[in-house]
Formats: sequence, C-alpha cells, structure tokens
Amino acid sequence: MDEAGRDAISLHELVLENGRSASPFVWRIRYALAHKGLAFESRPVGFTGIPKLFGGRFKTVPILQHGDMILSESWKIAAYLDRAFPERPLFSHPAEHAMVQLMDAWFSAEILRRMVRIYVLDIHNATRPEDRAYFRSSREQRLGGLALEEVAADRETRLPALREALGPLRAQLAQHPFLGGEAPNYADYIALGAFHWVASCSTLPLLAGTDSALRGWLERGFDLYGGFGRDPRMRPLFE
Amino acid sequence: MDEAGRDAISLHELVLENGRSASPFVWRIRYALAHKGLAFESRPVGFTGIPKLFGGRFKTVPILQHGDMILSESWKIAAYLDRAFPERPLFSHPAEHAMVQLMDAWFSAEILRRMVRIYVLDIHNATRPEDRAYFRSSREQRLGGLALEEVAADRETRLPALREALGPLRAQLAQHPFLGGEAPNYADYIALGAFHWVASCSTLPLLAGTDSALRGWLERGFDLYGGFGRDPRMRPLFE
Repeated sequence: MDEAGRDAISLHELVLENGRSASPFVWRIRYALAHKGLAFESRPVGFTGIPKLFGGRFKTVPILQHGDMILSESWKIAAYLDRAFPERPLFSHPAEHAMVQLMDAWFSAEILRRMVRIYVLDIHNATRPEDRAYFRSSREQRLGGLALEEVAADRETRLPALREALGPLRAQLAQHPFLGGEAPNYADYIALGAFHWVASCSTLPLLAGTDSALRGWLERGFDLYGGFGRDPRMRPLFE
Repeated sequence: MDEAGRDAISLHELVLENGRSASPFVWRIRYALAHKGLAFESRPVGFTGIPKLFGGRFKTVPILQHGDMILSESWKIAAYLDRAFPERPLFSHPAEHAMVQLMDAWFSAEILRRMVRIYVLDIHNATRPEDRAYFRSSREQRLGGLALEEVAADRETRLPALREALGPLRAQLAQHPFLGGEAPNYADYIALGAFHWVASCSTLPLLAGTDSALRGWLERGFDLYGGFGRDPRMRPLFE
C-alpha cells in the first residue's frame, strides 16, 4: 500500500430519521469499500446538510474523503478507489467497467425511475424531520408538480411493471449466483444498493413471496462482507 | 494455432428471399468470427430448411461447423470460439462475460421483444416464399393467435416506446465510441445484430433522423472489419 493508502477514509452518507444509510448511490460505495476490505468512518448527513459541507462544493452524497482527497459522485469514487487501492479491483478490465456502466444506464432508466415513483412518499416520511420540507418541494418539482401523496396513490398498480422490469436480473441469477457471475461485482452493488434503499423505508413490499431467484440473491448479497448492511431497521422486501 | 484451428469453419445462416443473412443471432456470430479474424464459409438456409440439416438435430441457427465439431446457439458458439481460438478473446474476463449476458437479458426483454412486434410482418414478407406459411403460423401462435397483419396494424404507435427503451445505449454512447468502451465487444455485436435484422427487411424506419448518438455508433459498427455487413439490400434505419 502506498503513502496515500495509509490515510483514513471517511464517507458522508445520507441518513434517515432512524440513522440508517439510505442513498442507493452511497450503498454502492459502502459495498465498494467492503469489496476492497477498506475500513471507513461514517459521517451521517441529512438532505439539507449536504450544502453545508465543504463550503457547498457538493450537491449529492456519497462524498469520500481520503487524506487530502475529497470527491463526490459514485462512479468517480469507484474509479478513484481502483486507482488508489489497486488490489481487489472493482473492475477487472476496461470492458467490464464499460459493461457495468451500461447496466447502470439500464437500471437507472427502467428500475430506479419506477422505484422512485412507488417509494417517494415512504422516503419522505422516513427522512429526518428537518429534511422533509426540502425533500417534498424538490421531489414534487421533479415529478411534474404532483403532490407526493398523489404520486403514491396509484403505487400498487405500478408494482407489476417494476416486478416485470426486474426480469433481466432473474434471467442472470438463473445462471449465476451473482450478477457478476461466480463472484459479486459492481453491478451487484448497484442493484443491492437500490434494494437497501427500498428496504430502508418501504411500507409496501416490493417483491412477490414466490420470487425465489431474487430472494436467494438478496440473501447472499446482504450476507456479503460480514453482513455489514443487515440490521433490524430493514423493512420486508417480500410480500 | 492448434490442430483444430486449421480446420475449415462453416456457418449456417438464415437468409431472406434476397439472400441476405437476417437472424440477429447469426449476426452475433458473424461479428464474433470477424473479431477473431476467422474466415468462414456461409451456408444459407431458410426457416423450413433448418430441420432438414444434420438429421433434425437443431431447431435454430446459427449452426457452426469446425472440423468434427457441430454446434448451435450463439452463446455456446461464442464460448467455443474463445476456447478453440484464444487469441483476440471475445471476453477478457469471466465478469465481462457475465455482464454481457446481463446486457443480453435486458436487450432481449426490452428491445428484441418490441422489435418483433413492429417488424414481424416485414420479416414474413421478406422471407423465401417457401418459408412464409411456416413463419406465419409459428409466429401467429407465439403472438397469442393474432394475424401478423393485426400485430402490424398499430406498429407506428409502438415505435416511441422502442425508441425510448434504447435510451441506455444512447447514455453509454455519450461516454464511449462503442458499448464495450474504446473497442467493440460482444455487447456491440448483440445490438448491431438486431439493427442488421431490422435493416434486412424494414418498411418503417426505426429511428428518428435526429438520433445522432445511435447513428454515429451504427456507422462505426457497420464499418467494422472491412464493413462486411454493409450491402445495398439494407433498408434505411433512420427517418
């Protein structure tokens, strides 16, 4: 390990009222750090706390500090971690990196977008009280001016399309224990991060009880690296 | 190159009335062979000719022959090619292989499925006359008993959803010249194969004239390996 490698790492994480890390993008980096066996200090922050950090330099979490290096955006942080800590690489080859970016583009468009519409009111209700007004106004603007309650009103009718859109994960998991094959890779961390996000706040189980392909993978994923993501605050993902 | 490597390679390809190779799965293997710099002899076959080959052993093309080895299914053929011809590998690492399988699962569910509904009548009309009755009855059965003409009737209203579903490709191509990054990989060949299929028979341009991200990549993709897929029988993909 080089000089830089010995410096402490800290991670600014978006937390809910109950203290649980909730951002799907932060979870990607939590898994990336665990993948590399890197310890880090957690720095909890709420939505309205982010602009108060580092003179307002960042608008989103995760924010990673490593010695003098401070950076945000999960893809940039992942690339930095592979440069600073080349052992146990997150990406075996530039083509694997490109393929996971393509997976992320699909996952954001077809899965995360649907999850937002179904869980946005649950997220609101689970955030720290001081974050709720900001969360509501920023999200209602993004959702075309609808009240969060209006967006949530038809959420049960939207669930089947989300479940169907998860089909490619099921197809992959019929062939391999992880999305990355025999071992988990960054695609697993992207997808697991989204399920952690939902499990942090959900009042509507996302998956059918019979969805054994996803259940098996989620159990394996949550168990990774000593099960650092498991805790009793997680709400059921299965009906 | 080993003993096996010196044997001739032949590829059974599904062809249309005009003689053009049309199967998206065959195109994957045409690109895979070109990627490796392997020459092959083309063996054209129509839909109803497949069961007459090799004593009815195979139901689908591509079928690859290499010396005594005869095998079908594009993923199996791709894996065989990397074993028999390890130079210029299709997959740099098992994780890249797994990621392309996941891309294929997404692409089949969200893209190919929509393309079938839009172009199935065009494909029918372009097949060899002796294949049309079989093609019609097998596809009408798969499409829930609707006549191909009924399926095609609303195809223009289905086009916007297909164009939107191609968003992940555009996002990737905003960052890299190919889906695989700086160089094309098997994900490019999967996607290019689908566009070759459509270009073989389309009477309805798939893409908007303003879709420059996809246009640039398609031009680069069709130019690969001496532009072996380009020919005057291709129909316009852009409005």
